[in-house]
Amino acid sequence: MTSTDAPEVIVDQPAAHVDPALPPGPAVAHRPPLFQRVAAEFVGTALLVAVVVGSGIQATELTPDVGLELLANSLATVFGLGILILLLGPVSGAHFNPVVTLADWWTGRRTEGGLAARDIAAYVPAQVGGAIAGAVLADAMFGKQLVQWSTHDRSAGHLLLGEVVATAGLVFLIFGLAKKDQLRFAPVAVASYIGAAYWFTSSTSFANPAVAIGRAFTNTFAGIKPSSLPGFIGMELVGGVVGLALVALVFGYRSNNGEAGRE
Amino acid sequence: MTSTDAPEVIVDQPAAHVDPALPPGPAVAHRPPLFQRVAAEFVGTALLVAVVVGSGIQATELTPDVGLELLANSLATVFGLGILILLLGPVSGAHFNPVVTLADWWTGRRTEGGLAARDIAAYVPAQVGGAIAGAVLADAMFGKQLVQWSTHDRSAGHLLLGEVVATAGLVFLIFGLAKKDQLRFAPVAVASYIGAAYWFTSSTSFANPAVAIGRAFTNTFAGIKPSSLPGFIGMELVGGVVGLALVALVFGYRSNNGEAGRE
Amino acid sequence: MTSTDAPEVIVDQPAAHVDPALPPGPAVAHRPPLFQRVAAEFVGTALLVAVVVGSGIQATELTPDVGLELLANSLATVFGLGILILLLGPVSGAHFNPVVTLADWWTGRRTEGGLAARDIAAYVPAQVGGAIAGAVLADAMFGKQLVQWSTHDRSAGHLLLGEVVATAGLVFLIFGLAKKDQLRFAPVAVASYIGAAYWFTSSTSFANPAVAIGRAFTNTFAGIKPSSLPGFIGMELVGGVVGLALVALVFGYRSNNGEAGRE
Amino acid sequence: MTSTDAPEVIVDQPAAHVDPALPPGPAVAHRPPLFQRVAAEFVGTALLVAVVVGSGIQATELTPDVGLELLANSLATVFGLGILILLLGPVSGAHFNPVVTLADWWTGRRTEGGLAARDIAAYVPAQVGGAIAGAVLADAMFGKQLVQWSTHDRSAGHLLLGEVVATAGLVFLIFGLAKKDQLRFAPVAVASYIGAAYWFTSSTSFANPAVAIGRAFTNTFAGIKPSSLPGFIGMELVGGVVGLALVALVFGYRSNNGEAGRE
Repeated sequence: MTSTDAPEVIVDQPAAHVDPALPPGPAVAHRPPLFQRVAAEFVGTALLVAVVVGSGIQATELTPDVGLELLANSLATVFGLGILILLLGPVSGAHFNPVVTLADWWTGRRTEGGLAARDIAAYVPAQVGGAIAGAVLADAMFGKQLVQWSTHDRSAGHLLLGEVVATAGLVFLIFGLAKKDQLRFAPVAVASYIGAAYWFTSSTSFANPAVAIGRAFTNTFAGIKPSSLPGFIGMELVGGVVGLALVALVFGYRSNNGEAGRE
Repeated sequence: MTSTDAPEVIVDQPAAHVDPALPPGPAVAHRPPLFQRVAAEFVGTALLVAVVVGSGIQATELTPDVGLELLANSLATVFGLGILILLLGPVSGAHFNPVVTLADWWTGRRTEGGLAARDIAAYVPAQVGGAIAGAVLADAMFGKQLVQWSTHDRSAGHLLLGEVVATAGLVFLIFGLAKKDQLRFAPVAVASYIGAAYWFTSSTSFANPAVAIGRAFTNTFAGIKPSSLPGFIGMELVGGVVGLALVALVFGYRSNNGEAGRE
Repeated sequence: MTSTDAPEVIVDQPAAHVDPALPPGPAVAHRPPLFQRVAAEFVGTALLVAVVVGSGIQATELTPDVGLELLANSLATVFGLGILILLLGPVSGAHFNPVVTLADWWTGRRTEGGLAARDIAAYVPAQVGGAIAGAVLADAMFGKQLVQWSTHDRSAGHLLLGEVVATAGLVFLIFGLAKKDQLRFAPVAVASYIGAAYWFTSSTSFANPAVAIGRAFTNTFAGIKPSSLPGFIGMELVGGVVGLALVALVFGYRSNNGEAGRE
Repeated sequence: MTSTDAPEVIVDQPAAHVDPALPPGPAVAHRPPLFQRVAAEFVGTALLVAVVVGSGIQATELTPDVGLELLANSLATVFGLGILILLLGPVSGAHFNPVVTLADWWTGRRTEGGLAARDIAAYVPAQVGGAIAGAVLADAMFGKQLVQWSTHDRSAGHLLLGEVVATAGLVFLIFGLAKKDQLRFAPVAVASYIGAAYWFTSSTSFANPAVAIGRAFTNTFAGIKPSSLPGFIGMELVGGVVGLALVALVFGYRSNNGEAGRE
């Protein structure tokens, strides 16, 4: 790619990361209208949850081995999440996750092109609504009752620690990539991360409050009991803060403007 | 790549997506002769079905676990489909699928370089003929009777919904990537999508009328009873329409000429 | 990449594919000395066979499910083959396979920079010797007798058809990619192809006379009875011819010099 | 990418590989402060071991099939290691491994920008400390006792041969890629290599003294008995030497300055 390709980032860059050699503001100027961005967040989160829940149902119907079920579930999620970020990143940033939206607002809050409060107020409900729609769609595709509260308790303390680690890792990855101008790798990187986190965290890495809420609506493999939601969502928010702290530790506190100038 | 590499797209771009800064028509001028393109569609669809059917037979011969069978079947398809699109995309666009051919014609119908009726009339029979040939080849490689109608009934209502979702997702992906000038990622994106859709849709995502017809010719793991074909094919066409509607919703109704100008 | 990066191909291009706009001969001028290229073919083929044989042994020691054994065996081969082509392609072209070497000589025979008879006479023994060394190394790593003839009979007629298809597909892929100047994708494409071919061909896709010979030296999962070798090797040569015929059918008989001019 | 992108390497290049056409020293000038690099090595090695150990625990809790356990364990490691190299390579070079750090110092010892003794003295303790922290974190996430010496004996002679091969292959890959200026592929190449080496080496490829030490602290699937550590670590150092010898054999003894000039 020539340097004129630089704006073709796959996930929205906070404005602080924009090459100062470019005229200020173009990222904002080219941002699609809010309606399209919200539609992308809704559709993307819905399809993500449909993949997570649907592949879990398919796997439990085909094999009694729970390890194999999680393997199928995790690989389907890797494939599905990767293409959703690739496809919808250029529209909305492909957050599909309130923690990512909040962290994006936080890191870009002192810059002209960062997310505004109005964006957050539109993104988060779209993510939650999409997640619920995706769970219902998955249940419908497999002939299940459309809404049935999950009875899968996930409240043990070590699961909560797992959820902090899972979310911290996700935020560390996304905003660390942004620091080094590598967000074009986000589709494969974020999908791979989730593929690992399904296995290495005890909570199987929800790492996403919207997806967690959606997964409460289905009493299948990927479900979560509504009473376990507050703990998971709280730990995900904590994990987001830990993740941003790790970014500051490893990549430095300052914006990467200085570095961008050499790239 | 330099900007002069732009024509090296991996999947044929509808002419509406061509950078207006280029002289009009080059994509058409460099399109290989129809004979080669039809050969590519025939060979590509044949190999795709040989992969789908053959890996299903191999898997059922090696393990009794149906979950593991689908895992092997889906991973083999991801690997095979990805390289077929990479290899044959520059020749024919690597559709291998009448729904994709029809959607490509529809989205390019008002532009000079779009698919003509003559192209469709040549592509679709090549796809169907290739699919049948691929199923017969797979049966031959495994010492099965060359043609044996499948007895695998796939007519339940929720499977039909799964098939709508599967095809809508495929069309949303391909034509959404085209809108943002990202078709160079089609080999890995489309293959990954199918890898996810095998698992998250209840129908295991045929999403392709030609492949569905070919799979009726083999009474093995991946087969489909001929009487289930009309339902599947009808739902795939419905899914194609839903997919184009999703593209319009998320990416906008207008062609991406305006945007192409900045890339 | 800028156009000055063009020589950085991952697999040696037959000279017929070199951009005529470049001064003739540079690919030849930069080709590493024959000793290094032969070392690369020996080491690469040895490691390839060590991966194939070793992962087969590991899998059979860990699980009784033959489907799972082939899944582990095939995934390990995808990972291993991909990086061997990436690493050694810039040295020797990363053939590791007499059929590929012969097909490369054939397609480049009327051009100045093609493989010479002397190259073939050095490559093929290195490939065969490396394959044997790799099988012995794998046996040694797992505490097996270093050489023990395989008793795994693979002479059934439908397996031979599978081997023709496997090798034809491999040659179609490699030389088709070359026709469209896409050999930079060879590491992931060839590895993915083998990942699919393990499953969709009845022979589990040896597709390589040197590797077949090496696999005769180990009486483990991936072995082949010496008496089955002539049939396999003969069919692989037939497959190579079929593959080149497919390339001519789909990509045209002429060299791609004409097309290279526009890229 | 334009040639001005050259400094954006994913893993630190030994200075000998820097294009002499560039002003000398910029790689050094842009190297992040030692504190950040050490933090990256600590965090990266900790997360790597958390992935290896955590996914091993998860797998053994979900399935009784040891083959499936290793498959999940290896795939999670591929995903996790790949993104850690992608993310942290631009900071510290993403060694996470004393053998790689030592080999990097050795190959760059006569050049201005190579690793200094001070770097090694900081990197290696960070790697070992991180590995131990990662094992403890994994145990905590799964509700295990935080530290419990592994009882998994790994002292058989053929395992030691496996460990030599595993480490030799790793060093051959990394420093061979560097010779041909291909380190931008390190994230996917090194991760894929480890994915293969889990299976084709009898030792399941620790290939890393720091990780081996960390894995002694957990009595779970991925553990190693402390008494087996000296043998493993010794063989890993031997493997590192063998790997550098292979690089010299296949890629030549001289630095690649001569070649870099043409790229």
